[in-house]
This record gives sequence, structure tokens and C-alpha cells, in this order.
Amino acid sequence: MKNAASEKAFNPAYWVWGRDETKPRLLHAMIRVKDIDRSLRFYVDGFGMKELNRFDLPARRVTAIFIGYGDYSDSALLELTSYWDENGPYTHGTGYGHVAIGVPDILATIARLEDMGTEVVERPRDIAGGGPLVGFVKDPDGYSVELIQIHRR
Amino acid sequence: MKNAASEKAFNPAYWVWGRDETKPRLLHAMIRVKDIDRSLRFYVDGFGMKELNRFDLPARRVTAIFIGYGDYSDSALLELTSYWDENGPYTHGTGYGHVAIGVPDILATIARLEDMGTEVVERPRDIAGGGPLVGFVKDPDGYSVELIQIHRR
Repeated sequence: MKNAASEKAFNPAYWVWGRDETKPRLLHAMIRVKDIDRSLRFYVDGFGMKELNRFDLPARRVTAIFIGYGDYSDSALLELTSYWDENGPYTHGTGYGHVAIGVPDILATIARLEDMGTEVVERPRDIAGGGPLVGFVKDPDGYSVELIQIHRR
Repeated sequence: MKNAASEKAFNPAYWVWGRDETKPRLLHAMIRVKDIDRSLRFYVDGFGMKELNRFDLPARRVTAIFIGYGDYSDSALLELTSYWDENGPYTHGTGYGHVAIGVPDILATIARLEDMGTEVVERPRDIAGGGPLVGFVKDPDGYSVELIQIHRR
């Protein structure tokens, strides 16, 4: 499987996600993806995330890629997984909603995503009344991604 | 709808999730839930999260509840939504995986969750080889929640 063959082992340095902690915290949300490179273009090129690490879990026959804006130790991440024996397309059910990404300039981000061919499901608008601009796009596997303007400008 | 009637308006103070920011960041993951109180027992009593805010979005006919370990401004959160015209049960598809929560004592957390009637899908073990103990449970709506031991003890 071209996409899955990262041929990297798990790095035990990340066993506690980089930090020895005594308090609970949210670590990541995981989504299964059909094409790692396609997903990285979306989240890295489109949203400006970084790829932190990728490793294989042979016992589960899956490659895991951790991406985000910070590091394991200081922020929540997104985990993309590519299963070696199953390659989508994945279905989305009715329960899971979205991951929300706060962006300083929602109009610029949406424009960049559209240039990349991203489907815009809802154009940015104030959905809460006195709130930030909020928009929704589809990621390459069809997951809904919410964008929220976090800079007052 | 008993669960949905929070009768609280959106608080514009949260328009940027508490902070005026110039850099993007992950804000939250959203899941639809059938019974807010049942979900809060799981995530608040079971995992020790706090309820930060709940408000109605009448235009979308939904009540949103934000929960987590920090605040809007300093950590990623979980958004639970209760739709006024639709009350589950929700389906989960094949794509979305889980939210991962790092806990200092995975065995104690799993024991507490089991006492509350939680289904344990995978007992804690080292799935990566030299990694932390990892386990999986089902939340009350059937979402998979990964627990990762983050304290070396």
C-alpha cells in the first residue's frame, strides 16, 4: 500500500505525548483517511498545520500521522490514520459533527482552500448573533471542518 | 425538548473563544448527543471535565455545550450538541475514529467508568511497544473514546 508504507517505528519518546503529566487533557481527534498525501495537502498546505510524526502500528495494521499547530505537549492534535487493509471511502454516519479550527482570517483561508478545490459547504457568516464569522468546508474524505474567525481584525 | 431547552443565549464574550488571536489553532471537536445529562455524567463525572458554557443557536435549532479541562482560550474542547428536532440514536459510520483523552491513571479512570456502566472496548495495554497504556471505551452515544496514560508513575 503506497500510502501506508511509512516504514517508521513508534518513537517511545512520545509515550506520554512529550510530557509527564498529572492532570488529564484532550490529546487528539482521530479520523481515517483514504490518501495521506491528499489529506496533508488539505491540512498542512490549506490550514497551515505541521506534520509532527508518523509511525506504523503493525499490530493494528495502520499508519498514524499526527498533525497540528503545536506539539504533543502543548496542544491538541489531529491524528490521521491510514489502514493497510482498508482504504475507504469512509462513511460518516449522523453523529460525529466536525473538528473546528480557529483561523485569524477566515476569508483568506476559505479562498485558499477553494483554490485547492475544496468544497465550501457554508460561506462565512455570523451564525450566533454577535459572534465570529463561521464557515464549513469538507475535507478530502468528506469530514466536515468548521472554521471560526479568531482575530477581531 | 427537555434536554435541549437551555434557554441561554450566545455570549458574545466568547466570539473569539476568549482571546483575540493571530495564529490558527484547533478549537474543538463536535459530537451530537441524545441526552445531555447522560453525556455530562460520562465526561464530567467520569473524566473530570468541566462544563464551560451552554447556549442555544435558534437558527440551527440546536443547543451547544462546551466541555473540557481548560478554558476556550487555552485548550481544545469538546462540543456536545443536542438538536431540538432530532434526538438520535446517531450512527457512526466507518470514518471517524475517536477523541483521545490523556489521563494520569488509566486503570483508575477505567475502573470509575466501569462502575458507571461504561462499556470497555479494549482494556489498557501497550499497543505501540514501549508506549503508554492505551485503552478504549464507548461514550453513552457509542462514540469511541481512547484513553492514554500520560503520567509515568
